[in-house]
Amino acid sequence: MDGTSRLHVDGDRLWSRLMAMAEVGATAAGGSNRQALSDDDADGRALFVEWATSIGCTLATDAVGNLFARREGTDPDRSPVVLGSHLDTQPTGGRFDGVYGVLGGLEVLSTLAEHGVVTAAPLEVAVWTNEEGSRFPLSMMGSAVWAEASDLDEVRALADVDGVSVGAELDRLGWSGDLPLGRELAAYLELHIEQGPVLEASGSEVGVVVGVQGFRWLTVTLTGDPAHAGPTPMDLRHDPARPLAEVLDGLYRIAAERGPWARATPAQFRSEPVSPNTVPATIRFSVDIRHPEADVLDGMDAELRALVAEAAERHGCGWEIAVDNDSPPVAFDPACVEAVAAATAATGRSHERIVSGAGHDACYVASRGPAAMVFVPCLDGLSHNEAESIEPGQATVGAEVLLHAALSLAG
Amino acid sequence: MDGTSRLHVDGDRLWSRLMAMAEVGATAAGGSNRQALSDDDADGRALFVEWATSIGCTLATDAVGNLFARREGTDPDRSPVVLGSHLDTQPTGGRFDGVYGVLGGLEVLSTLAEHGVVTAAPLEVAVWTNEEGSRFPLSMMGSAVWAEASDLDEVRALADVDGVSVGAELDRLGWSGDLPLGRELAAYLELHIEQGPVLEASGSEVGVVVGVQGFRWLTVTLTGDPAHAGPTPMDLRHDPARPLAEVLDGLYRIAAERGPWARATPAQFRSEPVSPNTVPATIRFSVDIRHPEADVLDGMDAELRALVAEAAERHGCGWEIAVDNDSPPVAFDPACVEAVAAATAATGRSHERIVSGAGHDACYVASRGPAAMVFVPCLDGLSHNEAESIEPGQATVGAEVLLHAALSLAG
Repeated sequence: MDGTSRLHVDGDRLWSRLMAMAEVGATAAGGSNRQALSDDDADGRALFVEWATSIGCTLATDAVGNLFARREGTDPDRSPVVLGSHLDTQPTGGRFDGVYGVLGGLEVLSTLAEHGVVTAAPLEVAVWTNEEGSRFPLSMMGSAVWAEASDLDEVRALADVDGVSVGAELDRLGWSGDLPLGRELAAYLELHIEQGPVLEASGSEVGVVVGVQGFRWLTVTLTGDPAHAGPTPMDLRHDPARPLAEVLDGLYRIAAERGPWARATPAQFRSEPVSPNTVPATIRFSVDIRHPEADVLDGMDAELRALVAEAAERHGCGWEIAVDNDSPPVAFDPACVEAVAAATAATGRSHERIVSGAGHDACYVASRGPAAMVFVPCLDGLSHNEAESIEPGQATVGAEVLLHAALSLAG
Repeated sequence: MDGTSRLHVDGDRLWSRLMAMAEVGATAAGGSNRQALSDDDADGRALFVEWATSIGCTLATDAVGNLFARREGTDPDRSPVVLGSHLDTQPTGGRFDGVYGVLGGLEVLSTLAEHGVVTAAPLEVAVWTNEEGSRFPLSMMGSAVWAEASDLDEVRALADVDGVSVGAELDRLGWSGDLPLGRELAAYLELHIEQGPVLEASGSEVGVVVGVQGFRWLTVTLTGDPAHAGPTPMDLRHDPARPLAEVLDGLYRIAAERGPWARATPAQFRSEPVSPNTVPATIRFSVDIRHPEADVLDGMDAELRALVAEAAERHGCGWEIAVDNDSPPVAFDPACVEAVAAATAATGRSHERIVSGAGHDACYVASRGPAAMVFVPCLDGLSHNEAESIEPGQATVGAEVLLHAALSLAG
């Protein structure tokens, strides 16, 4: 092995940067709120740019605001090895989801700069735009546009609840740049907290991620007849809360029948009118369904539709289901997966191969080039939660694996 | 009988006023949106004031903006007979709820003015403030303050969803006047559409209302642990939508077990955070329960609390129930009820005695003096709905009954 095998990341530097980033949009409960394309998101990026500039990186964005910090290699003919994730968060987000992958990638470049190591291929750190999809309703938005899976103009037209569009925010922040979408990449590695309890339960220090569960976001609308809550007898109502009870009950059954990898999450409940003494005219909620196998996911979708239709019709209500997002299961590149596994072994860390339950920017990148992911365990599997937590030592382990996997891929 | 027994209201005038009022805050679907203390509510009152002034009434408000149009009688020592209801509507309200009682009362005074009939007691038409309780969360607010069942300062501090207070709106509109609260009234009669299907089903032209169902408004909050919708296994979640399904199911059972007069209406569903891929931290909804007997209502309340506690605890969730409104069952004054029954018989209309399913300003007025109500059927029992409808002939019948009941009470 050459001299780079003895390189180590600086765990203290990585941790202090994670804590500094968490202060941007910090919430009272210890999390972060840096929703995509907000001023807080811009402040987070400014901090990243300051750190990347300090080690000599050049920075550039593409048309949807994906930001790349580049450190040149020795071979001008080689495509870059890209390490990255996102800096935007959920409204009540934690300190590590996304951030850890960006700052872990930056830690790899910082370590190389510190030790004067230059790789053959260029190395880049990617900050993808609006991975969370909570402010603007399209998760992994930046990587989807980059991979040409979503149309730039349609994405620019997406609006938040106040009617502000992605395009208006990109223009306001000056994030729309010239870097081509869908460039050729030698490899893409994304370091992330697991966001689930599997590694913690098994005691593995590292998860070598072989693929990602498919998921689909649906919006279910149940419509009834608004009527006065007092005089209208129960049996003469068309109350959408009656099918709601049955749909929720059936939804959990649909997931339970498909084993431990199936997921069903109803959320975003809203009813109209906002009046305590009127039978609702509409009840609307989202359903997130997931499974690692495409045909099982299709089966869950079909069964949910039948369930909604039957429950609504049984109670004289109307119904509608819209598909807001559809992300098929992903299998990662075998060579990238092996690079991660070998780096984990080289650093002497225990590991296992797992499937990601959450979607990541790596899913879209994988549709255009070789990609894989590295997971570290997180406390109680909690994520999308202000209490999301990892130990500094765990953060260091993951970054070390990322360093050695990147070195093996960048030569 | 004296000459007044041959008096008739002017059904065309009443109907044209109803239609003119419906244009104020008219909705695209044919209803009205004049929420309490809004500019539209003020425009509606201005129209009423114009009509009342044209027949020589004097107008005055009390501290909570209840508006009274007064026509003096011949005997200065007698307390007024008051006819009234409200002009504010639900956000997607109909054309008749409340409005019919105000304009029916005005039609009585207009008929007397037209025929030069002066009663012994003064007659007044009351327009109570914020009966609906949809913008500011206290239904029958104006009559509750008038009856000293609610505290004026607390009511002034109530805020709408934008944080605007009742007090600020009363001051802005100049509605806070000097008329004493809780004055002595000789009698109070409220004409209203039934808002239910009972009269339509039985074919009765008039409902002689003997009392009002008690009701209670509760807000149920279920709390879980926000977690990422992908990686978090179903059996490790604390998902508040699980107890929600059970609570809704049980709520309908609680009502069904208590016979045809029991009502249960879940509404105003809201969950946080607004994110499709996060298990909700909280789900909140209102429950409106009603019954004509106080002990049965208490039993429904107690059973609902047990249901919420058990369902939440079964799924590792937290729960809380707040009481937002509590209106006990009301029995109307026998003499007022008989005056209505006699007037109905005198006009030759078919009628039956019924219990109101909805709360009305008459409930609070009844706590301070003699009161009763007159109902007319409405199409399909629909109310709190833009499609709320009555026929012009039905409107005339109710106003005619109100006229003769008022004459018998005012001497």
